[in-house]
Amino acid sequence: MTPKDLRKRIAKNEFTQTTAGMCKGYLQTNMLLLPKEYADSFEKFAKANAKAIPILEILRESPYSKVLAKGANVLKEIPSYNILKEGALVETSNNIEKYYAKDMVIYLIGCSFTFETPLMKEGISLRHIEEGLNVSMYKSNIKLKPVDNFHGSMVVSMRPIVKDKVADACVISSHYPSVHGSPIHIGYPSMIGIKDISRPDYGDTVLIKKDEIPVFWPCGVTCENVIKEMKLPFAITHSPGYMFVSDKKDSEYYV
Amino acid sequence: MTPKDLRKRIAKNEFTQTTAGMCKGYLQTNMLLLPKEYADSFEKFAKANAKAIPILEILRESPYSKVLAKGANVLKEIPSYNILKEGALVETSNNIEKYYAKDMVIYLIGCSFTFETPLMKEGISLRHIEEGLNVSMYKSNIKLKPVDNFHGSMVVSMRPIVKDKVADACVISSHYPSVHGSPIHIGYPSMIGIKDISRPDYGDTVLIKKDEIPVFWPCGVTCENVIKEMKLPFAITHSPGYMFVSDKKDSEYYV
Repeated sequence: MTPKDLRKRIAKNEFTQTTAGMCKGYLQTNMLLLPKEYADSFEKFAKANAKAIPILEILRESPYSKVLAKGANVLKEIPSYNILKEGALVETSNNIEKYYAKDMVIYLIGCSFTFETPLMKEGISLRHIEEGLNVSMYKSNIKLKPVDNFHGSMVVSMRPIVKDKVADACVISSHYPSVHGSPIHIGYPSMIGIKDISRPDYGDTVLIKKDEIPVFWPCGVTCENVIKEMKLPFAITHSPGYMFVSDKKDSEYYV
Repeated sequence: MTPKDLRKRIAKNEFTQTTAGMCKGYLQTNMLLLPKEYADSFEKFAKANAKAIPILEILRESPYSKVLAKGANVLKEIPSYNILKEGALVETSNNIEKYYAKDMVIYLIGCSFTFETPLMKEGISLRHIEEGLNVSMYKSNIKLKPVDNFHGSMVVSMRPIVKDKVADACVISSHYPSVHGSPIHIGYPSMIGIKDISRPDYGDTVLIKKDEIPVFWPCGVTCENVIKEMKLPFAITHSPGYMFVSDKKDSEYYV
């Protein structure tokens, strides 16, 4: 299935799952929609925390992508959206057109699903993909650099990697800095404030086998966590793991 | 001090310490001297296990380096040698000229000390260097690929790396494949058969701080371990951490 076909099915509500493992070889992104008055501060905040929040495209005065997937309507071509008010999740929806106003700003932000195909091509198994699950995501205690009112902690995605492939996973993902790049932490969940690895804050639980190490990457769900910690009056994000699948090849983001 | 000056002092027995941290920016190597009858099998074995045993120069019918340090006498320009008989360490010496015969073959093998300068240049602290100690080395349970009679387990060097720099350490060292390259294991010593991290089999003990992860690289002392496990009638190696310091810049081995 091409990304365009998948997005068409998503818009018609025919595809409602996580996009993990979908359209292998294509860039996937996080989405954040903010009222205009927060845009400047958020953009500075993202810049200061670019490993967690790598902005790839900004849509102003239009919900249609121009760069990542020309003509795609970001308000309905993502399988699930989280609507947040005063920092609380008030609704999950598959279409947010009714919430949109022209003075809102939409951010498309790099997602680590993008480097999963390159990892698998190098012989690194990814359990959540093999099992058709969403990736495990956790709130960490890694503090972001605050800018204006924006502050909070990083959310991380976790993939169990067989022990002798961990360094390879670091090297391969490091070539994709615009989709979070190399891991932020390796092993020992408690060192980044994760108390129970079997209970992710977002996504699904996956088994970590005896010869595997949990490897943690920065995650774009960081934005949702920041919005919650700030109790921002209004914002919409994609639902964690339900990403915007772009028309760009992952290879275009290889450096 | 240039490598040449250091080697001169070593030959005069004026420098008798570990070469860890010496002549920053220069390639250091392991040394193995074998009777000719083992050469072919060893070379095939090294090739099959190149991450642990990356041969950089072979000296036949002469103890003088031609490539790595033109004219250096490998029999006395290393601070300490281990003489092994029937797999047992029978003597440690600073000069092995009396043991040498023209039909012996000498191997100079890449050493991870080489990428320590690049690691430090990128802001990664290395405790053993800061404290003027030898690196910690351990026998692991990682099995080498056997070739002919050669077989055994890998020896690994360990450096504690602050948690948010571990991925960087993987990426940087991966650029130096001829001196072991990226780590073979990260975290969890017990997963590679190390029971007590505070008791290295070779080198010195270093503190692992609360926010640090033990990172393990393949180590050229693997050869000594193999000779011991095989109970080879005769062989000489450098003493672990007491390396041959070459005239080559580490940057020449960057790929």
